[in-house]
Amino acid sequence: MCNTIKQILKQNTRLINKKLVVKGWVKHKRKNKLKTFVIINDGSTIKNLQIIIENESKDINQDINQDINLGIFLKIKGIIVLSKGNKQQIELLAKNIKIYGMFKSKDLQQTILQPKQHSYKKLREQSYLRFRTNFFGSIMRIRHNVSYLIHKYFHTNGFYYIHTPIITNYDTECSSNLFKVTTLNFKTNDFKNDFKSDFFGENAYLTVSGQMQAEAAALGLRKIYTFGPTFRAETSNTPRHLAEFWMVEPEIAFFNLKNNMFLAEDLIKYIIKNIIRLSKYDLEILDKKNIIFKNLNKILNKEFQRIPYSKVIKILIKNGYDIKWGQDINSEHEKFLVEIYFKDPIIIFNYPIDIKPFYMRKNKDKKTVAAMDIIFPNVGEIIGGSQREERYNILLSQMKYFKLNMTILEWYLNTRRFSTVPHSGFGLGFDRLIQFITNMKNIKDVIPFPRSIKKIYT
Amino acid sequence: MCNTIKQILKQNTRLINKKLVVKGWVKHKRKNKLKTFVIINDGSTIKNLQIIIENESKDINQDINQDINLGIFLKIKGIIVLSKGNKQQIELLAKNIKIYGMFKSKDLQQTILQPKQHSYKKLREQSYLRFRTNFFGSIMRIRHNVSYLIHKYFHTNGFYYIHTPIITNYDTECSSNLFKVTTLNFKTNDFKNDFKSDFFGENAYLTVSGQMQAEAAALGLRKIYTFGPTFRAETSNTPRHLAEFWMVEPEIAFFNLKNNMFLAEDLIKYIIKNIIRLSKYDLEILDKKNIIFKNLNKILNKEFQRIPYSKVIKILIKNGYDIKWGQDINSEHEKFLVEIYFKDPIIIFNYPIDIKPFYMRKNKDKKTVAAMDIIFPNVGEIIGGSQREERYNILLSQMKYFKLNMTILEWYLNTRRFSTVPHSGFGLGFDRLIQFITNMKNIKDVIPFPRSIKKIYT
Repeated sequence: MCNTIKQILKQNTRLINKKLVVKGWVKHKRKNKLKTFVIINDGSTIKNLQIIIENESKDINQDINQDINLGIFLKIKGIIVLSKGNKQQIELLAKNIKIYGMFKSKDLQQTILQPKQHSYKKLREQSYLRFRTNFFGSIMRIRHNVSYLIHKYFHTNGFYYIHTPIITNYDTECSSNLFKVTTLNFKTNDFKNDFKSDFFGENAYLTVSGQMQAEAAALGLRKIYTFGPTFRAETSNTPRHLAEFWMVEPEIAFFNLKNNMFLAEDLIKYIIKNIIRLSKYDLEILDKKNIIFKNLNKILNKEFQRIPYSKVIKILIKNGYDIKWGQDINSEHEKFLVEIYFKDPIIIFNYPIDIKPFYMRKNKDKKTVAAMDIIFPNVGEIIGGSQREERYNILLSQMKYFKLNMTILEWYLNTRRFSTVPHSGFGLGFDRLIQFITNMKNIKDVIPFPRSIKKIYT
Repeated sequence: MCNTIKQILKQNTRLINKKLVVKGWVKHKRKNKLKTFVIINDGSTIKNLQIIIENESKDINQDINQDINLGIFLKIKGIIVLSKGNKQQIELLAKNIKIYGMFKSKDLQQTILQPKQHSYKKLREQSYLRFRTNFFGSIMRIRHNVSYLIHKYFHTNGFYYIHTPIITNYDTECSSNLFKVTTLNFKTNDFKNDFKSDFFGENAYLTVSGQMQAEAAALGLRKIYTFGPTFRAETSNTPRHLAEFWMVEPEIAFFNLKNNMFLAEDLIKYIIKNIIRLSKYDLEILDKKNIIFKNLNKILNKEFQRIPYSKVIKILIKNGYDIKWGQDINSEHEKFLVEIYFKDPIIIFNYPIDIKPFYMRKNKDKKTVAAMDIIFPNVGEIIGGSQREERYNILLSQMKYFKLNMTILEWYLNTRRFSTVPHSGFGLGFDRLIQFITNMKNIKDVIPFPRSIKKIYT
């Protein structure tokens, strides 16, 4: 019988006197005259299991006892007994111990596994090892649970998961921050100006959003969502930006902006309500360093306030900010709004047409579009969405206005030409959500292997 | 009250006499003297709802009745009544109908929405519209359910979902089929031979597998899995290959090849057993054209046979194939083995060291590695996996033998240097699994927007 430590601790005292095989690595070791106490963890939970070795035991070679160093992997056969300590209810009395492979104690000194306070930056530099630290292990388990909750929420509510493509031939957001994808040989000149010889026979990029394909899918399957990686060649290296990040994008037919705001708020509250329960122990570990539960519970208590962009501008002007109607709201403004003025997450909607992408639905005032952004404390914009322009003629004129490539995007117009129905959707920055939940300062500390300008972490 | 058609049909006769708002598009229309019968679908299910319009009804403008063409989106307010037909139990008696937007009947002629038999190739050419066809809609709902089952299986069994990176700086499989990722300007010469000026300051590629990072994660979290897009610049355009495809890669610490085979078989059987139940109606639609349930049930009935590579070679030679020990098993051999000789899926294990990647664990015979491939009828290799070489010195010499870049891959060696434990994992080709379940001939017909050589479908 070989269980994870999570399974063992869950069964607790019901396992007393049972013979078990346990595997894990050493987090702590101390010795007194009679016994050696070895704390092991296996990553299945933040909690540890204490192993008791009787120093005079004939079963265990005392050389092995000597070799048990921090960080080393062990396999222990033993019997579960009631703990005499008050930190845990059960512990394992070792009968047989096997050490896995080689491990030099001096090697440990070079790593973040050495038991002392390391900076987040140092942990990141050994990202392949930080899965074994308490803090990052907890973040990863939380990340898993949030992913799972997202899939569960959508599945339960009748949404279908669509794998929108990663390699595209256009730029949804009309940004210049595109990564190119190619198989051409860079060292020769052959390919110059000639993309017909490239793999796809045309320009290819990494997607910045699955939205346009998601729209096509929603017009066939009614309620769909995507959950996949997206890319921005962000040249600014900030604690809120990644070159590669994960995005969740629901898209729903017969859905207006009001429905869209409701869905976004409901999704976020569902995730937060359930993560508090599902990741209790891991969140408790983080809560010792960062404020966690207070932040999370605050989100649940009230309805997110919905404020039109025009009103936001008035508030900002009244409070001394130098901003005019028509300008974009920056992160300094956002900070003031959610952390000082409203003291809560807010939904800003109906933005000026000129500061939003071409596909958003024009409002009756002809000056604004049916856009919405959800602004959160600490992390800023966490969701951006809109009702989409479903009217063929208006969309066409918007595309011409923005000078888009009509040949490449004809298919998108055709989703309106061959039918048309109001539909809406939004993008949730998954890593930012994890950053908010864990209250980490740098987004690079909530994703396993961050990518940003001039740096590929392995 | 606005429900999806799936929700309405689930509640069935309990809704009799209830007022409802229903939305969907027209799949079929016929008229007799007294009534017009409009069949609508909304993508939430393969099943349709019948709308009854009384031709003399004062509630409904008869011009609107005239405008109801195939493919058009409608919003219908009405009352659920018992159906007089025998195809359905309930139908909606329309009291008010709204038509969404413009739609010219002659436009329909140009599309795959026109109700006649279209080839799969033609459907693919309008991939943005095929979500609305019966057949492809069913495949997408099945694809969703399989995704969900995969997450559920791993979550329930204590695995953590890890987002391994898409952009990497090395090539796991040592293949030459890599896509490069760059922000350099192709039209200038500036970048020639100088990757230091590129976005990441070094060569960057699209991942071919998340395995190596998955290993690092498993050594910290014990049981993990990835589920994300992977890329191969395949220059051969076959019905089994995509340039961009989704892969599921579990990786488990303290796990040997035998455990690995058990997990792979258990996962596949879990998916197939549950998809038969979860996607019953959609599979029934496919079953009219392709053999479905017979294939699926066959997988469930028996344990997958495990056959060492050496024995497979003997069988092939005995049956007249020109193959020697040390050569790779090709798709023709696979076809013979699973469709003629064994007549079942098989697991081939212990492959010659020279035809498998460097990271697989060397067996005691020093000639083979602890690799396993699962071969399925119709689709060929669906899973490839191995126990990983966890012994530092042997891994090091393998890496030198394969002439790998030791600077870039030092971190991978370090996952052994700073600890070592037996671990194993495999990659499941998600799209191939969907291809097997739906029994589609071309893998391009089971993914929303296929990418392959010289073609980006939108």
